[in-house]
Amino acid sequence: MAAEKNSKFEKVTFDIDKNNNFSEWFTEIIKRAELADLRYNVKGFLVFQPWSVIVMEKMYSLLEVNLQKKGHNPYWYPVVIPEKNFLVEKDHVEGFAPEVFWVTEHGAGEKLEEKLALRPTSETAFYQMFAWWIRSYNDLPLKTYQRGAVYRYETKATRPFLRSREFHWIEAHNAFATHEEALQQVKEDMQITQEFMGEQLGIPTIFFQRPQWDKFPGALNTFAADSLMPDGKTIQQPSSHDLGQNFSKAFKVLFTDKDGKEKHPFITCYGPAISRIFASLIAIHGDNNGLRFPFEVAPKQIVIVPIAVQKEKKLIPFVKKLALELQEAGYRVELDLSDRKPGDKFYFWEMKGVPLRIEVGPKELQQKKLTLFRRDTKKKEVIAQKELLKWIPKTGKALSENLKKQASHLFDGAIKNADSFEELARLVNTRGFVKCNFCADGKEGEECAEKVEKELAADIRGKRADKKESPFGSQKCVVCGKPSKEVFYIAKQY
Amino acid sequence: MAAEKNSKFEKVTFDIDKNNNFSEWFTEIIKRAELADLRYNVKGFLVFQPWSVIVMEKMYSLLEVNLQKKGHNPYWYPVVIPEKNFLVEKDHVEGFAPEVFWVTEHGAGEKLEEKLALRPTSETAFYQMFAWWIRSYNDLPLKTYQRGAVYRYETKATRPFLRSREFHWIEAHNAFATHEEALQQVKEDMQITQEFMGEQLGIPTIFFQRPQWDKFPGALNTFAADSLMPDGKTIQQPSSHDLGQNFSKAFKVLFTDKDGKEKHPFITCYGPAISRIFASLIAIHGDNNGLRFPFEVAPKQIVIVPIAVQKEKKLIPFVKKLALELQEAGYRVELDLSDRKPGDKFYFWEMKGVPLRIEVGPKELQQKKLTLFRRDTKKKEVIAQKELLKWIPKTGKALSENLKKQASHLFDGAIKNADSFEELARLVNTRGFVKCNFCADGKEGEECAEKVEKELAADIRGKRADKKESPFGSQKCVVCGKPSKEVFYIAKQY
Repeated sequence: MAAEKNSKFEKVTFDIDKNNNFSEWFTEIIKRAELADLRYNVKGFLVFQPWSVIVMEKMYSLLEVNLQKKGHNPYWYPVVIPEKNFLVEKDHVEGFAPEVFWVTEHGAGEKLEEKLALRPTSETAFYQMFAWWIRSYNDLPLKTYQRGAVYRYETKATRPFLRSREFHWIEAHNAFATHEEALQQVKEDMQITQEFMGEQLGIPTIFFQRPQWDKFPGALNTFAADSLMPDGKTIQQPSSHDLGQNFSKAFKVLFTDKDGKEKHPFITCYGPAISRIFASLIAIHGDNNGLRFPFEVAPKQIVIVPIAVQKEKKLIPFVKKLALELQEAGYRVELDLSDRKPGDKFYFWEMKGVPLRIEVGPKELQQKKLTLFRRDTKKKEVIAQKELLKWIPKTGKALSENLKKQASHLFDGAIKNADSFEELARLVNTRGFVKCNFCADGKEGEECAEKVEKELAADIRGKRADKKESPFGSQKCVVCGKPSKEVFYIAKQY
Repeated sequence: MAAEKNSKFEKVTFDIDKNNNFSEWFTEIIKRAELADLRYNVKGFLVFQPWSVIVMEKMYSLLEVNLQKKGHNPYWYPVVIPEKNFLVEKDHVEGFAPEVFWVTEHGAGEKLEEKLALRPTSETAFYQMFAWWIRSYNDLPLKTYQRGAVYRYETKATRPFLRSREFHWIEAHNAFATHEEALQQVKEDMQITQEFMGEQLGIPTIFFQRPQWDKFPGALNTFAADSLMPDGKTIQQPSSHDLGQNFSKAFKVLFTDKDGKEKHPFITCYGPAISRIFASLIAIHGDNNGLRFPFEVAPKQIVIVPIAVQKEKKLIPFVKKLALELQEAGYRVELDLSDRKPGDKFYFWEMKGVPLRIEVGPKELQQKKLTLFRRDTKKKEVIAQKELLKWIPKTGKALSENLKKQASHLFDGAIKNADSFEELARLVNTRGFVKCNFCADGKEGEECAEKVEKELAADIRGKRADKKESPFGSQKCVVCGKPSKEVFYIAKQY
C-alpha cells in the first residue's frame, strides 16, 4: 500500500481568491502546501518545511553564484557579537539595541563574563575583522558575504516569511579605497537584485533612495528595493547601504594608500532576505488554486501520475523507470503512487505548484505517448515519449518566462500622482505608490513625514534611485505647501 | 599593478614536519592558508575564511545530495529551544544542561518570559514537531535533517575546527514504526559516513559501538566513527544514535499502526560535524609543504601562473582567455597575475593545496603547449594545449584517488593487542588503538573504565560495530582480571 500523503488535510481542492482575500490565501497556502509550521513554541520563530527549504536553498545557490562571480568571497561569522562591539558606532547601537536578543548565561545559570548579542545584523562583527585584514590599498576592494540567519526582537506583529524574529538572509560587506567605488558597489547591488529577483525569479522591484529619517542605522544613505503584494501594499526587499567612513572610523579600519597616507576605507553592505523574497515569490506567482513556481527553483519540477493502474500491469514499472530517467537527467521528480484518485492528485500537485505533470495510462503506454500538463497555462498536450527530454527544458523555460511576463505588469497603474494632501489621502488607499511633491529630505522634512505616517498610516518610500525626477504641477509639498525640493513615493507597507 | 595577495605573510615557503610536529603544523596552516581567523573576540568562536568555507560548502552539498537520495528531507529549525523542552527527557537534560548557552534578555535588559537555549543539538526541537506530524503508520518512516550550527559551552580547551563553542554540522532525525527499521537506519548512517568520508573525501574511519557510560544522553546505544590524526590520537567523527522510544515517549509522539493500536515510534539521529571532518581532511591529506585537497572539494582546483610576462605581450591575454574557458567549463580557477616571482607563486599555491597548476611562458605559447603540475606527486608534464580539457578531469580524478590511496594506510599497524594493564599502558602511548579484553559493558565495567581514564588519560572507544570479536589470550579484563565479556578498543583521543 502506498502512503496516503498529506492525510491531515481533508479538503482536496484549493480555491481562494488571491487578489481579494490575500491574507487568507497566504495563511492557508503556508499550511496546505506545508511551507512552514507555525506551532513551534517560541513566539516569532517557525519551522521551515522541505517545500520551502528546497526552494530557498536553490535561491541561495543562484544568489551566491552571482555574488562570487562578481568577486565576493564567502565567510562564516559567529552568531554572537559582544556587547562592546555594538557600542562602537553610536547610530547603529541606537537603531538596533531595542531589537537585540541577549545571551547572558550558561549551564545552570552561571553569568557570562560579557553579554553577547544574537546577531541582528553583522556590521560590528565584520568590521572589527576588516581592521585586522586591511593594511594597504592592495587589500582593497575587499568584497565579502555570509549566508545565515539573524535575530531581531520584533515588537510589530510577526508574520511567517515576512517578519519573523529569526530570518534567513545573505549579508554582503565590502570595503573600498574611494567613495566612488563604494557608490559603484551600491549600483552593482541593485544590478544583482535585478538579476536575481527580476530575471531569475520574475519579481519586479523598484529601487528607492530612502529618506534620511529612514536610513539603516549608521549609514550615509540607504537604497532599497520595493515590490508589491497582491493586496496592493508595498514590501521592502533587498537594501544596499552606503556606510561612508562611519564604521571604518569607529572600528579603526585603516589602509596605506598609494600616496603613502593612512586612510579609512569606504564601506557598503547589502542584505537580501531569502525568506522574505520567498514570500514575494509565492505571493506574486501563485494563483487561486495555489502555488506556481518558476521551473528552476521549484522543489519538485515534474510530477508523474499513472492513470488506471489496474488495467495495465506494465504501467507501474514504466513510470518507475521514467522517474529514474528524469532524476538521472538532473530533474527533481515526484512519482505519485499513492492510492488517491488521479483527479485528487492533480488538484494536490497543482496546489503545491509543481510546474509540469506527466500523465500516463494504458492508452499512452500503448501508443508510446504521454499526456503533459503545464501548471501556468493549465493546458494539456500529448507528445511522443521520445520527445520528452526535449520537451521538458523547453517547456520549463517557457513556463518561467510566462510567469515572469504575467508578473511584469505588477507596477502597471500602480504609480499615481497626487498634488494635494486630499488626493494623497484618497490614492494611498488604492494599490501601489503615490508620487508627490515633498518639501525636503532630512530634518526639514521630518515633520511632514510624521504627519503622513500618523494621519494616513502610510510610509515615505523615498525618491527613485533609477531616475531623477523633478517636482511637478504646483511644485509645492503635499503636506506643508512649502516649495518642493523632492519627489517622494508614498505607500502602505508591510 | 596587480594586487600582492597575502602580503601579511612574509615567509614564502612552508615546511613543517607534519607527522612529528602536528600541533605546530595544524596551528600554522590555519593561519598561513587563511582557513580561519582566531582573533574574534568571543572565546571559542572563530571566523571561517573563504578557503575553508568554500570546501565546507562543497562538503555540505555532497552530503545533502546523498541524504536526499536516501529519502531525507531538509528542514530549518529555530536556533532557540525553550528551557521546558530540555526538561522533558531526563538523561538528555543531565547530559546537555552544563553546556547550554542561555538567551535570557532582550533590548535594554528586559527579561524574556522564558529562558531559551541556543541549541546544543536539536532533539527536543525536532521531536515536539514529530508529535504534530506523525499520526499514522502512513506517516512513517519520517526522515528529516537540517544543516546549521550548534552551540556548546565547552569547558575543555577549544581548538579551531576540532572543538569550538560553535560548530557547523548536519543533524538528521528519523522516526520508524519498528526497532528493526531504526537499527537499519543506524546501518544506513554508517554507510553514508563511509560514502562521504571514505569514498568522496578519502578519510578512513572505524565505527565503534560506544560503551554504555559514553552514550549520547538519552540514547539506547551510540555508534560513532573514529579516525586518526597524524599525531596518532583518535578523533570522533559522525555518530549515529539509536534513541529507542525514549524521546517518542517523553514527547508523546504516537502513531496508529496497521493493527489499529497506538504506538510510540522508534527514533534515530545522526550528526556529521562538517567543521570537524574538515579538520580530518586537511590533517590527513596535508603534507610538509601545506594543504592537499581532493580535486572535487578544493576551493580552487586550478591555478594559472604566467612566466616571463615581459618577454611576450600575448601572454596576459592568453592566460585571461584560458582562465575564462576553464571557468566556463565549470572549474574553480585562480589566475595569479600578482607581481611576485613565479617560484614564490608556486610555493604559495602549493601551500594552499590547489590540486593542479598550469604554467605558461613564451616557449609554451609558441609551441602551443602547457606545463602542468600535480600537487600530490609534485611532478610536471608538458602537454599540447588542445589536450587540456581532457587532461584536467582525468588528472583531477587521479589526484583524488592517489590521496585516498595514501590515506588508506592510516590504520596499518595502528591496532595493537594488549593482554595486561602494563601492556595497555605502554601501547596506548603509541599511534592508534589498543585492543583489550574488558570485563563488561554497563555499570559493571564502569569502575575499570574510570581507572583507564584516570591512570592512562585514555578513553574506551567501545567495541567494533563492523564485526563481532571474541575475547582472546587470557580472556580476562586487562584492568580487574575478571572474565572478559567484551573486546574494547582504547585510545588517546582529541
